[in-house]
Formats: sequence, structure tokens, C-alpha cells
Amino acid sequence: MIQSVDRAIRVLGVLQGARLISLSEIATRLELHPSTVHGIIKTLQAHGMVLQDAGSQRYRLGPAVLKLGNVYLDTLELRSRALSWSTELARRTGYAVRTGVLLPDEVMIVHHEPRPDGSRQMQEVGIVIPAHACALGKAMLAYSPEQRDALLASGALRSMTAETATEPAQLTERLAQTRQEALATEQEEAVIGECGLAAPIFDASAAVTGAIGVVIPMLEWPAADTVAGAVRETARNISRELGAPHWPG
Amino acid sequence: MIQSVDRAIRVLGVLQGARLISLSEIATRLELHPSTVHGIIKTLQAHGMVLQDAGSQRYRLGPAVLKLGNVYLDTLELRSRALSWSTELARRTGYAVRTGVLLPDEVMIVHHEPRPDGSRQMQEVGIVIPAHACALGKAMLAYSPEQRDALLASGALRSMTAETATEPAQLTERLAQTRQEALATEQEEAVIGECGLAAPIFDASAAVTGAIGVVIPMLEWPAADTVAGAVRETARNISRELGAPHWPG
Repeated sequence: MIQSVDRAIRVLGVLQGARLISLSEIATRLELHPSTVHGIIKTLQAHGMVLQDAGSQRYRLGPAVLKLGNVYLDTLELRSRALSWSTELARRTGYAVRTGVLLPDEVMIVHHEPRPDGSRQMQEVGIVIPAHACALGKAMLAYSPEQRDALLASGALRSMTAETATEPAQLTERLAQTRQEALATEQEEAVIGECGLAAPIFDASAAVTGAIGVVIPMLEWPAADTVAGAVRETARNISRELGAPHWPG
Repeated sequence: MIQSVDRAIRVLGVLQGARLISLSEIATRLELHPSTVHGIIKTLQAHGMVLQDAGSQRYRLGPAVLKLGNVYLDTLELRSRALSWSTELARRTGYAVRTGVLLPDEVMIVHHEPRPDGSRQMQEVGIVIPAHACALGKAMLAYSPEQRDALLASGALRSMTAETATEPAQLTERLAQTRQEALATEQEEAVIGECGLAAPIFDASAAVTGAIGVVIPMLEWPAADTVAGAVRETARNISRELGAPHWPG
């Protein structure tokens, strides 16, 4: 670990959370000397990773991070495989389809296929959802013992709605059920009015590399049995394309 | 400038260009000792900025960069202002609408409103186009003397098609015309078959902060006069919302 690189990434992390923040506030949050933070900020700024607001003199993330993010998406084989399968799954089920990857304790959406009813929908690529509170996250955690144990041990099961599993025992039980059915369900655990189904995607090393699932409005819950089958089948097909030796279903 | 932070960002830059690359190749490209690159890579990896491919042992960008990129988009006032105006401009003209910002010599797309004919279209957010080869870039360069002079002096006018301005004198002339009309045109200069019109967006400090424009298929070029008017009007409206004291048109 190189200390100044580690600190630079922590500065980016503070900017990610705060959005627009002064140098002294960054220094306070990271318990660093302002002159240390100044050197880091100026280096990040020279590369377009950070911008300084002309009026307030405060700092925010710069355009270079978006370019990096776009290349990350382009190089993600999971995503390129998910593209056509997502269109098909949305068409078959009538629901919006999300593909996600697991950050330590969050799911990040890497592809979003809108509900095929022509309605205007937010693009969700890049957004994160607490892993324990969504079907995609539970589908991945159920087959990722290390990340699951780390999350359970951390005790950081943040409540998003009254339905979120905030007790380790509760989450353990939901993950056991996910493994039993090779399918995770979500009933208003992250967002009121929103339910979902998701299944895990495995890669050639037999490790979980992502999950794919459908978003189902509460008013249409529970979905027809065919939807669960279609989600499982899609996850199995993408896993096969990625060279996964087997799929749990 | 902090040397190790600068090097870490250069490592990210190599990964951005190479997509999947070995540690020794990174070291060669940056003329650094492999052990130096190793320390940087391990630090970036610990934060999810870089991933190591299980099979080939090579490195690629990690999910943390996408999360940063998404926050950058969210905090961009230009983008939030452009959202509704883009829908309106696409509806009025029937064309796809792009909003971009200027990196030193490239335009990065920060919003993309698809052509409102219901056809399936690639999401273009995060992609970059050489600034001298597109209407958005010329709209910004025409009002950004520093960036324009730096680009002209660099002699780096890469040819994209036979129509790209690759001679400084040619670009200077096109930028002068852009200022005259407060509108930049593009005729197959970046992509064969694709034309466009764009106008600059100014912020409260009277500096160019972005540009907005329409993408016009060659077969529909030139567009009706009303399209140029609609593009200018949209850029002026967004500039006014951002607090710009005046607009060139």
C-alpha cells in the first residue's frame, strides 16, 4: 500500500460522498493536514479527476472519472453478455431488467434495460443499492461466502424500509432461502413500492460475477411463476456464455 | 504535484487505453520500475479501482471508477439543466440530442437524449469525440481561446474521416465561422454518415461550460432552418438558467 495513493483515493471517496466540499473540510474528515490534502487535490485536478468551483472555491469530482467509468463498463464481459439477454428478458416478462455487480457491501448497476412499455425511465447505470436490501445483492451474497460473512460480521445492515433485513439472523435466513430456490426475492426492502426477483451469474472460475433480475411494482406482486423461471434461465444462459462450469438451479 | 499520486493516475490512464494489461507492460509504458507499479496497483486494487483478471493475471479498471463517474454526472449542474431542455429539443427537431463538456482536446458526452422515433439507440454518455472533429467541440473551442490555442499549437488534429479539419488554418476558419453564427456545424467530420449542429452553453462566470447539439443523419442534411434556431435557443435557455450574463447570438 502506497500511503499517498491510498490518501488520494480517500479524497476521491470524500468528494464522492460530499459532492462539493472545501479543502479544510476534506482534511478534517480524513484527519490529514490541509497542506497534505492540498498537494493531493492539485495533482488530481491536473488530471481532470477533480474540479474547483469558480465561485465557492470548493471541490468536486471532474470529468476524467466519467471517462474511466465508461471504459470500465465497456471492458466488462458480464455487461456485454447481458445486453441482448436483458432485452429478451424484458420482452418476455414486461418488466425492467437490471444487471449488477457486488462491491464489498453494495450492488452497482452495470446495465439497465427499461420496462418495455415505452414509459420514460431514469437510466440507472452506476447507481448503488445496499446489497442486503435488494434481490440482486442477495442473489450474489448467497453464493459469496466471504463477502456474506464480512457483511454479517460488520453489523452494518442499514435499514432502508421497514422490510429491510437489519438483523444478521434475518439476512442469513433470506440467503439460505435464496440458495434453496437459486432465486432471490425482494419485497419493498430497498424502495417502497418496488419488488424484484434476481438470480446469480457465474464465470469460468465458478465464482459469482454478477446477478440479473427484474423490477416488479408492488401492485403487480407476486409476479407470474413464469417470471421466476425466465430470470433463472437468463442467469444460467449468461453464466454459460461466460464459461461457467455449472449453475445451481 | 505529488509524484506517487501522479503516477497512480497515469496507471489508470494506461488501463483506460489498454483495457487489459500486464504489470510489466504498464511499467514499460510509463518507464517505471515494476515494483513501483506493483505498489500502486495493489493500492488501487484495495479500493476497487483496479481488478486483476483471474485467468490471465492481467489488470483492468474496477467498479469503483464507475461509481465515481456516476457521482460526477449527478453533480453536474449543466447536465441537470440540460435534461428537460434536451427532451424538448429532440421533440421539436426529431433528432437525437447530445450535451457535452470539453476535456482538454476531447468532448465527453454527459447527456444523450435518443432520437424520438422509438428506434433502439446506444447510450452515449461517457464516450469521447475529438473536439476538433465534432459540432459540440467546435461550439466550445470557438469560445475557449486558451483551449483552442493549445490545441492548434499541439498540432494534434487527428484525422477521423476525409472531412476532419487536420490543418490548424482549416480549424481556425471553421471556428471563426462558428463564432459568426453562434452555431457549429459538422458534416461527416467524426463519423461517416453523421452530421450535426451545436451551440455553446455559458455559466455564471461567462465561461463556456458545455455545448448542446443535434445529430443529423447525412441523408437528412442539411436540416431545416428551424433546427438551427432551436439549437441556439436551447443553448441560450440553459445558459440563462446557469446564470450566464449574456449569450453570443
